[in-house]
Amino acid sequence: MEILKVSATSKPVSVAGAVAGVIRSAGRVEVQAIGAGAVNQAVKAIAISRGYVASGGIELCCVPSFVEIQIDGEVRTGIRLVVEIRPGRDRNGVP
Amino acid sequence: MEILKVSATSKPVSVAGAVAGVIRSAGRVEVQAIGAGAVNQAVKAIAISRGYVASGGIELCCVPSFVEIQIDGEVRTGIRLVVEIRPGRDRNGVP
Repeated sequence: MEILKVSATSKPVSVAGAVAGVIRSAGRVEVQAIGAGAVNQAVKAIAISRGYVASGGIELCCVPSFVEIQIDGEVRTGIRLVVEIRPGRDRNGVP
Repeated sequence: MEILKVSATSKPVSVAGAVAGVIRSAGRVEVQAIGAGAVNQAVKAIAISRGYVASGGIELCCVPSFVEIQIDGEVRTGIRLVVEIRPGRDRNGVP
Protein backbone atom coordinates (compact mmCIF):
# COMPACT_ATOMS: atom_id res chain seq x y z
CA MET A 1 0.00 0.00 0.00
CA GLU A 2 1.34 3.44 -0.90
CA ILE A 3 2.26 5.63 2.08
CA LEU A 4 1.85 9.42 2.11
CA LYS A 5 3.78 11.12 4.90
CA VAL A 6 2.20 14.31 6.17
CA SER A 7 3.86 16.95 8.34
CA ALA A 8 2.48 19.96 10.22
CA THR A 9 3.56 22.16 7.30
CA SER A 10 2.01 20.00 4.56
CA LYS A 11 -0.67 21.75 2.56
CA PRO A 12 -3.99 19.89 3.02
CA VAL A 13 -5.10 20.66 -0.55
CA SER A 14 -1.89 19.16 -2.00
CA VAL A 15 -2.13 16.06 0.18
CA ALA A 16 -5.81 15.76 -0.74
CA GLY A 17 -4.87 15.70 -4.42
CA ALA A 18 -2.34 12.93 -3.77
CA VAL A 19 -4.86 10.93 -1.71
CA ALA A 20 -7.49 11.23 -4.45
CA GLY A 21 -4.96 10.17 -7.09
CA VAL A 22 -3.87 7.03 -5.25
CA ILE A 23 -7.47 6.15 -4.35
CA ARG A 24 -8.47 6.37 -8.02
CA SER A 25 -5.56 4.19 -9.14
CA ALA A 26 -5.13 1.76 -6.24
CA GLY A 27 -8.35 2.00 -4.18
CA ARG A 28 -6.57 2.66 -0.88
CA VAL A 29 -3.73 4.64 0.59
CA GLU A 30 -2.01 4.99 3.96
CA VAL A 31 -1.51 8.48 5.37
CA GLN A 32 1.08 8.78 8.17
CA ALA A 33 1.45 11.69 10.57
CA ILE A 34 3.48 12.32 13.72
CA GLY A 35 2.33 15.02 16.14
CA ALA A 36 -0.87 17.00 16.55
CA GLY A 37 -0.14 19.50 13.76
CA ALA A 38 0.57 16.74 11.27
CA VAL A 39 -2.48 14.68 12.27
CA ASN A 40 -4.64 17.77 11.87
CA GLN A 41 -3.32 18.43 8.36
CA ALA A 42 -3.80 14.76 7.46
CA VAL A 43 -7.43 14.73 8.61
CA LYS A 44 -8.15 18.00 6.78
CA ALA A 45 -6.56 16.52 3.64
CA ILE A 46 -8.77 13.43 3.83
CA ALA A 47 -11.87 15.60 4.35
CA ILE A 48 -10.94 17.63 1.25
CA SER A 49 -10.12 14.52 -0.81
CA ARG A 50 -13.65 13.24 -0.22
CA GLY A 51 -14.89 16.09 -2.41
CA TYR A 52 -12.31 15.30 -5.10
CA VAL A 53 -13.41 11.69 -5.57
CA ALA A 54 -17.13 12.25 -5.00
CA SER A 55 -17.61 13.33 -8.61
CA GLY A 56 -16.53 9.79 -9.60
CA GLY A 57 -19.14 8.30 -7.28
CA ILE A 58 -16.50 7.28 -4.72
CA GLU A 59 -17.18 7.67 -1.00
CA LEU A 60 -14.16 7.44 1.33
CA CYS A 61 -13.71 6.22 4.86
CA CYS A 62 -10.57 5.99 6.95
CA VAL A 63 -9.34 3.67 9.68
CA PRO A 64 -6.95 5.21 12.23
CA SER A 65 -4.36 3.26 14.19
CA PHE A 66 -1.07 3.86 15.95
CA VAL A 67 2.21 3.15 14.18
CA GLU A 68 5.83 3.13 15.31
CA ILE A 69 7.89 5.13 12.86
CA GLN A 70 11.70 5.19 12.87
CA ILE A 71 13.12 8.66 12.19
CA ASP A 72 16.87 9.30 12.35
CA GLY A 73 17.35 6.12 14.37
CA GLU A 74 14.67 7.15 16.90
CA VAL A 75 11.33 5.36 17.21
CA ARG A 76 8.31 7.65 17.47
CA THR A 77 4.63 6.86 17.72
CA GLY A 78 2.56 8.27 14.92
CA ILE A 79 -0.91 7.93 13.52
CA ARG A 80 -1.69 5.84 10.47
CA LEU A 81 -4.90 6.62 8.61
CA VAL A 82 -5.77 3.97 6.05
CA VAL A 83 -8.07 5.65 3.54
CA GLU A 84 -10.20 3.40 1.41
CA ILE A 85 -13.33 3.29 -0.65
CA ARG A 86 -16.33 2.87 1.61
CA PRO A 87 -18.12 -0.26 0.49
CA GLY A 88 -21.80 -0.26 -0.34
CA ARG A 89 -22.35 3.50 -0.33
CA ASP A 90 -22.99 6.08 -2.98
CA ARG A 91 -21.40 9.52 -2.85
CA ASN A 92 -24.08 10.79 -0.49
CA GLY A 93 -23.35 8.06 2.02
CA VAL A 94 -26.65 6.37 1.26
CA PRO A 95 -26.48 2.55 1.37
CA MET B 1 -26.76 11.11 15.94
CA GLU B 2 -25.01 11.58 19.27
CA ILE B 3 -22.19 14.16 19.27
CA LEU B 4 -19.05 13.84 21.39
CA LYS B 5 -17.09 17.09 21.68
CA VAL B 6 -13.36 16.62 22.11
CA SER B 7 -10.87 19.25 23.24
CA ALA B 8 -7.07 19.33 23.29
CA THR B 9 -7.18 18.36 26.96
CA SER B 10 -9.63 15.45 26.54
CA LYS B 11 -8.21 12.08 27.55
CA PRO B 12 -8.18 9.79 24.48
CA VAL B 13 -8.88 6.69 26.61
CA SER B 14 -11.99 8.31 28.13
CA VAL B 15 -13.26 9.50 24.75
CA ALA B 16 -12.53 6.04 23.32
CA GLY B 17 -14.75 4.49 26.00
CA ALA B 18 -17.55 6.88 25.11
CA VAL B 19 -17.16 6.20 21.37
CA ALA B 20 -17.26 2.44 21.95
CA GLY B 21 -20.35 2.79 24.15
CA VAL B 22 -22.32 4.79 21.61
CA ILE B 23 -21.20 2.54 18.75
CA ARG B 24 -22.43 -0.52 20.65
CA SER B 25 -25.80 1.07 21.40
CA ALA B 26 -26.46 3.22 18.31
CA GLY B 27 -24.02 1.97 15.64
CA ARG B 28 -22.58 5.41 14.90
CA VAL B 29 -21.39 8.55 16.62
CA GLU B 30 -20.14 11.97 15.61
CA VAL B 31 -16.90 13.24 17.16
CA GLN B 32 -16.30 17.01 16.90
CA ALA B 33 -12.98 18.77 17.41
CA ILE B 34 -11.72 22.32 16.87
CA GLY B 35 -7.99 22.90 16.51
CA ALA B 36 -5.00 20.64 15.93
CA GLY B 37 -4.69 19.48 19.53
CA ALA B 38 -8.35 18.49 19.70
CA VAL B 39 -8.30 16.75 16.31
CA ASN B 40 -5.24 14.78 17.42
CA GLN B 41 -6.95 13.64 20.64
CA ALA B 42 -10.08 12.71 18.66
CA VAL B 43 -8.15 10.58 16.17
CA LYS B 44 -6.20 8.87 18.97
CA ALA B 45 -9.50 8.17 20.75
CA ILE B 46 -10.99 6.57 17.64
CA ALA B 47 -7.84 4.46 17.15
CA ILE B 48 -8.13 3.25 20.76
CA SER B 49 -11.89 2.63 20.49
CA ARG B 50 -11.25 0.23 17.60
CA GLY B 51 -9.63 -2.12 20.12
CA TYR B 52 -12.53 -1.74 22.56
CA VAL B 53 -15.17 -2.88 20.06
CA ALA B 54 -13.02 -5.46 18.23
CA SER B 55 -13.78 -8.09 20.89
CA GLY B 56 -17.44 -7.84 19.82
CA GLY B 57 -16.45 -8.44 16.19
CA ILE B 58 -17.03 -4.78 15.29
CA GLU B 59 -14.64 -3.01 12.92
CA LEU B 60 -14.85 0.81 12.82
CA CYS B 61 -14.25 3.37 10.13
CA CYS B 62 -14.60 7.12 10.21
CA VAL B 63 -15.57 9.79 7.71
CA PRO B 64 -14.03 13.23 8.26
CA SER B 65 -15.60 16.49 7.12
CA PHE B 66 -15.53 20.17 8.02
CA VAL B 67 -18.20 21.63 10.26
CA GLU B 68 -19.06 25.18 11.32
CA ILE B 69 -19.48 25.28 15.08
CA GLN B 70 -20.88 28.25 16.96
CA ILE B 71 -19.05 28.94 20.22
CA ASP B 72 -19.91 31.98 22.35
CA GLY B 73 -21.57 33.61 19.37
CA GLU B 74 -18.52 33.09 17.16
CA VAL B 75 -18.49 30.68 14.23
CA ARG B 76 -15.41 28.45 14.01
CA THR B 77 -14.50 25.73 11.57
CA GLY B 78 -13.97 22.36 13.16
CA ILE B 79 -13.59 18.76 12.13
CA ARG B 80 -16.41 16.28 12.31
CA LEU B 81 -15.49 12.60 12.37
CA VAL B 82 -18.47 10.34 11.86
CA VAL B 83 -17.51 6.97 13.32
CA GLU B 84 -19.49 3.99 12.19
CA ILE B 85 -19.39 0.25 11.86
CA ARG B 86 -17.46 -0.70 8.76
CA PRO B 87 -19.78 -2.77 6.61
CA GLY B 88 -18.76 -6.18 5.33
CA ARG B 89 -15.62 -6.63 7.41
CA ASP B 90 -14.67 -8.76 10.35
CA ARG B 91 -12.52 -7.49 13.21
CA ASN B 92 -9.34 -8.12 11.22
CA GLY B 93 -10.52 -5.98 8.35
CA VAL B 94 -10.97 -9.05 6.16
CA PRO B 95 -13.96 -8.83 3.81
